[in-house]
Amino acid sequence: MKQALKEAEAALAKDEIPIGAVVVMKDQVIARAHNLTESLNDVTAHAEMQAITSAADYLGGKYLDECTLYVTLEPCVMCAGALAWAQIGSVVYGAKDMRKRKDSVDLKKLYHPKTKIEGGLLEEECSQLLKDFFEKKRG
Amino acid sequence: MKQALKEAEAALAKDEIPIGAVVVMKDQVIARAHNLTESLNDVTAHAEMQAITSAADYLGGKYLDECTLYVTLEPCVMCAGALAWAQIGSVVYGAKDMRKRKDSVDLKKLYHPKTKIEGGLLEEECSQLLKDFFEKKRG
Repeated sequence: MKQALKEAEAALAKDEIPIGAVVVMKDQVIARAHNLTESLNDVTAHAEMQAITSAADYLGGKYLDECTLYVTLEPCVMCAGALAWAQIGSVVYGAKDMRKRKDSVDLKKLYHPKTKIEGGLLEEECSQLLKDFFEKKRG
Repeated sequence: MKQALKEAEAALAKDEIPIGAVVVMKDQVIARAHNLTESLNDVTAHAEMQAITSAADYLGGKYLDECTLYVTLEPCVMCAGALAWAQIGSVVYGAKDMRKRKDSVDLKKLYHPKTKIEGGLLEEECSQLLKDFFEKKRG
């Protein structure tokens, strides 16, 4: 998760919402990415999406069932859907996503049934980075 | 939708699952794409995802609130999530996605509240293309 935090800091340096992700397989980082939605002008350029694409490219296969994704913020619906297609082995996130809609769906239902999900790793650091970013934005 | 079907046929020609999408703004097609998950070895390379990226690139802005996405198959969770981020104006799909899990979520809940959704346009043609593809694969 420390590596994912480094990626989040790289996003921050580009004035992007600071979210980072890494994909780990057998104790080795095989992909790293950070949010680039503003730089690329593309809502699909979340850290997780790029990390999935990059990891699959590295492995030469679409499925990441032996991999763990570490991401600094709880994945959104789009990313959860992508992680389901990738059949990711495990997802470990830092901060919980607090922007809940009243009618929001249970994110856990969106994943592949075999995917293990764990939240709260280095939660304080992950969430502080986001809080600082938004407080600065609000001026 | 006929343009989206042409894209689906382009996917078929590459031995991809035949799904196509176009983005229309003020009666003009501003993006077209087809499924490339096998060619790119990337679960995120759905027709809709590429069409969103391409349309935003054309417009120079992330939001597609004045646009309609035509897609030959009902969008999945990932694509619905991406379309929500893009705040797409309308989604019109052809064939209904029949691969329902017992505990599957209500896809309509995943979209932006302002997005209009319509299904069943040229449903027969869209779904026949997919049926033929899978029947041939099963061989």
